[in-house]
Amino acid sequence: MTRYRLAERLTRSRKSGISELFKWAGRPGVISMAGGAPAAELFDVGGVGSAFIRALHEAPAQSLQYGPPEGQQRLEAAVAEHLRGEGVSLEGQRILITTGSQQALDLVARSFVDAGDAIVVESPTFLGALGIFALNEPRYVTLPVDADGAQVERLAELSPDRLPKLVYVAPNFGNPSGACLSLERRRWLLRWASENEVFILEDDPYGALRTDGAPIPSLKALARDIPGAPQWCAYTSTLSKTVAPGLRIGWLVLPAEIAADLTRVKQTMDMHTSSLVQEAAARYLESGVLPAHVERIRKAYKQRKDALVDAVRSTLGDRLSFVVPDGGMFLWARFHDEQEIDTQKLLRHAAEEGVVYMPGVYFYASEPDASTLRLNFTRGAPEELREGVARLSRAVAHFQATQRAAPAIA
Amino acid sequence: MTRYRLAERLTRSRKSGISELFKWAGRPGVISMAGGAPAAELFDVGGVGSAFIRALHEAPAQSLQYGPPEGQQRLEAAVAEHLRGEGVSLEGQRILITTGSQQALDLVARSFVDAGDAIVVESPTFLGALGIFALNEPRYVTLPVDADGAQVERLAELSPDRLPKLVYVAPNFGNPSGACLSLERRRWLLRWASENEVFILEDDPYGALRTDGAPIPSLKALARDIPGAPQWCAYTSTLSKTVAPGLRIGWLVLPAEIAADLTRVKQTMDMHTSSLVQEAAARYLESGVLPAHVERIRKAYKQRKDALVDAVRSTLGDRLSFVVPDGGMFLWARFHDEQEIDTQKLLRHAAEEGVVYMPGVYFYASEPDASTLRLNFTRGAPEELREGVARLSRAVAHFQATQRAAPAIA
Repeated sequence: MTRYRLAERLTRSRKSGISELFKWAGRPGVISMAGGAPAAELFDVGGVGSAFIRALHEAPAQSLQYGPPEGQQRLEAAVAEHLRGEGVSLEGQRILITTGSQQALDLVARSFVDAGDAIVVESPTFLGALGIFALNEPRYVTLPVDADGAQVERLAELSPDRLPKLVYVAPNFGNPSGACLSLERRRWLLRWASENEVFILEDDPYGALRTDGAPIPSLKALARDIPGAPQWCAYTSTLSKTVAPGLRIGWLVLPAEIAADLTRVKQTMDMHTSSLVQEAAARYLESGVLPAHVERIRKAYKQRKDALVDAVRSTLGDRLSFVVPDGGMFLWARFHDEQEIDTQKLLRHAAEEGVVYMPGVYFYASEPDASTLRLNFTRGAPEELREGVARLSRAVAHFQATQRAAPAIA
Repeated sequence: MTRYRLAERLTRSRKSGISELFKWAGRPGVISMAGGAPAAELFDVGGVGSAFIRALHEAPAQSLQYGPPEGQQRLEAAVAEHLRGEGVSLEGQRILITTGSQQALDLVARSFVDAGDAIVVESPTFLGALGIFALNEPRYVTLPVDADGAQVERLAELSPDRLPKLVYVAPNFGNPSGACLSLERRRWLLRWASENEVFILEDDPYGALRTDGAPIPSLKALARDIPGAPQWCAYTSTLSKTVAPGLRIGWLVLPAEIAADLTRVKQTMDMHTSSLVQEAAARYLESGVLPAHVERIRKAYKQRKDALVDAVRSTLGDRLSFVVPDGGMFLWARFHDEQEIDTQKLLRHAAEEGVVYMPGVYFYASEPDASTLRLNFTRGAPEELREGVARLSRAVAHFQATQRAAPAIA
């Protein structure tokens, strides 16, 4: 008897091998460039602790009692100020506080997408979003990603009677591509969405982690200048990459009318996000220490990214190609076709050499490219990343020697 | 264009008037017996604060970094010890930490229930669970509740080809009925469920709040003595009623095989519950202060419950009937038929007198009884509860005078 279909949908959507990968990643001595976590040694433990103490001291009842499903007013106000600083107009918009931006994605997908609905995703796109979408059994429309981000212009090819329900896009240093959607493409997408009445879900966990180049305004910020566009886009971000993922604080900004409905769905999901964590997060943001803290993180990540890029370029540069990201947490690379490298098969050899990474196939809604891989550069010190790449390079040599010794049956 | 069906399902399931009710409840001078929150003045602010400080001091990285979707090991261990103390065998079972028990209900319902599946609920049952279930569009089988809890024996009348997917039951001082499922009925339900292979979801937020009578073991604890039963039941509880709802810490205990699948669904929902709150909750439980703290809450709630019961009995005792609950947070009552009182209509008069309560109609999956109401006794001091009942009594008199003056058109 099928007792629960939901987990089966996840099973169908899930590529094998991830749990094995994380078993390898946990072995002593193994250098893991597989995960997607921020550097724990950079957490502002003192600042966070002091915010919790102040929340409990100043507002014990609000911090410990049930709160409103849309979030604590004080955190909403702090997030609103932050968003205005980024050029976002909140006129006609509302902010919902969510249990991390993962919940914001789930809330929107669960509310908007029914089985068989089309949704647009980048190719490659965020693994965690693919898991969420799988629960709703959509059909996918995929947009290839190049150095200027997703090729959104391809949406013009869609037949007007087969329009998608949702466009999911991560315009800043998307996970895994690391690409940034260009200003022109952002404007094009907003115009297309408002003309065709298609809803955009903009996922921006990494925007604050820009290490190079000039910032590009978010879709939500650009929408104010495009007639009708504010009604057709939602924006989500999080404290996970700038403060700490363990807080599970995200926010979702969307048109007020839709927000009212989604607030009720959020309430059924977990009543509300922890009031204590929200009251502490509000005080942390109000204290004004975040910009200097993010600057520290950016400096460290820039060093790490440069170390990784230099090492990959000098060791494997003739074998794979990549675009150097202007920020974020990942380097996305692809082995040249003539190398004939399947990064899922390579992984076992890499693990034997003491390094792991994420094979790229996990990040595709369809037509996975087996020669791609994702390297995280935020968790290791520069010298660790260099050693990781040296091991990876040895694994490639070993893998190719093995392949030559036992050619595939034609 | 229907952009999102999900919120519409909630709209259909939702009775009108709740938002108006909470507007009244928030007015200065109004005594609210409508809500379901614990007494904020009894929160152990110092103990909770100290647990957070210790978590950040002793385990800053685990507290602030991403954690496993099933929960922090340390909190699982503390919850496991607590459960063993309540007679629960964890052999073949797993504990998942959830963002409050509301998320545990959502996780199970979302995973198990597809549109059109039958689920069994008590009549009346928890409003928050009805909201969750509505998202999955089930059909309902309802069990009337009497002084011994849900009349589970009625399940024997179900045709074997129309068995439900899930039985949802709150055996201890259920919200709103306040009733306790008798030991005999608990055993009967477990035997029926394992014989018919129907899954039970046991919701136990109030079990620790027993003020009178002897505790009855949970279904999960009783299952160890009934062959096959442990595989057919899940149990959820929370720190919301004993420590603080603002933490959003719940747990779900269920067969290991199902737990593995539901862990992946939980991961897509919000990655995991806040690691910091989990690390702090673990330390709070380990510190051993909870039993004495719960004893303080129980004493205060007993006083409040007795004050409410005495006031209702002496002021309205000839007009309505109720069973005095042995614990929990609510008194559930019903106006005698000859009183001809619709508690939704009475509410406006009550609000004018300066008191609000929850009309009972909100708590029914079908066939609502309009003469019922729920009175919360945990948030007000005894004298406030007495004054609330005096106002309610005046509202009843006023309402009945109005009814007599303008009889319904026949």
